[in-house]
Amino acid sequence: MGRPSVREEIVQAAVGQFHRHGFNGSSVDDITRSAGVPKGSFYNHFKGKEQLALEVLDRYAAAQPTALLLQKDLPPLKRLKKYFTVLGEGFIAAGCHQGCMLGNFSSELADHSAAIRKDLGARFAGWVEALAGVIREGQRSGEISTNQKPELLAGFLLSAWEGTLLRARAGNDPAILKDFLTVAFNQLLT
Amino acid sequence: MGRPSVREEIVQAAVGQFHRHGFNGSSVDDITRSAGVPKGSFYNHFKGKEQLALEVLDRYAAAQPTALLLQKDLPPLKRLKKYFTVLGEGFIAAGCHQGCMLGNFSSELADHSAAIRKDLGARFAGWVEALAGVIREGQRSGEISTNQKPELLAGFLLSAWEGTLLRARAGNDPAILKDFLTVAFNQLLT
Repeated sequence: MGRPSVREEIVQAAVGQFHRHGFNGSSVDDITRSAGVPKGSFYNHFKGKEQLALEVLDRYAAAQPTALLLQKDLPPLKRLKKYFTVLGEGFIAAGCHQGCMLGNFSSELADHSAAIRKDLGARFAGWVEALAGVIREGQRSGEISTNQKPELLAGFLLSAWEGTLLRARAGNDPAILKDFLTVAFNQLLT
Repeated sequence: MGRPSVREEIVQAAVGQFHRHGFNGSSVDDITRSAGVPKGSFYNHFKGKEQLALEVLDRYAAAQPTALLLQKDLPPLKRLKKYFTVLGEGFIAAGCHQGCMLGNFSSELADHSAAIRKDLGARFAGWVEALAGVIREGQRSGEISTNQKPELLAGFLLSAWEGTLLRARAGNDPAILKDFLTVAFNQLLT
């Protein structure tokens, strides 16, 4: 067992490395160098990159602005719009790079690691549930008039968000995020 | 210069390798072994994996059922629904694996290769335009009553499709594709 601080430095460095370069694009060497710890210390703390990736996902998810979805002083649609606006600001601040780590890992790893796939599946399901809760509130209050199931609307909205990030990275164009908000709030959730 | 048939064998093998394992997950060695050609022959034909990836994108795009979008004997909404149903059948036949190579490369490579990013951006723009053409027809014929811009609706629809594939891979759940069709055709395009 190595020092806990080394472990923490590795996890924190890996959040950045995996987000910038992907899982296969980040070697153990890259991660330990970025953490400023000896390469040999890695295997004192982790069985391998897969175990590290699961911790990185935990760390990444904990840093998301999910609490905004529960901010009940804002009406449901305003709250959802604020939430996606904040997510978008983070993406634009990163130069329209990096995108969502859940989406990135789904693309790169879901077919190759059962443990990571299950973790991602559960995280997406929880995310859909959180969004569906706000949509359900909006339907009850009459802000949203469609009677489509909130879980289906939330899933579609989340899919559109993930795809928006992919297209905005490919197009290097933050306007694609504005278009997402326009259609989400003037057509989908009406 | 090597034999043209070797070049072709490398491109064909790379379509499969990149789709199954991603760009960083496929080495030149993996690709030439899968093609059944000597590793050394690779650099007689390609400057590197980036040049190969651009050709693979061409090959991948050419194999897509884009012609369905121009099948004018079908009314616009039926045509769009058939198109996404056919895309989904291909994904399910692959065991809910692999997803869309444009999305995968956007996630893995858009931040790291300007040439590939530009290629992906142009392909997504063309795809949006093709979808927007069908949506515009539907608005003119009255099948689609929303007056949102067809390009915005098409972009959102395509984003939702890309995100649907990510979530279906993470959830290992083809039902997410059915949910996409439900919301796309009962709520977004109404």
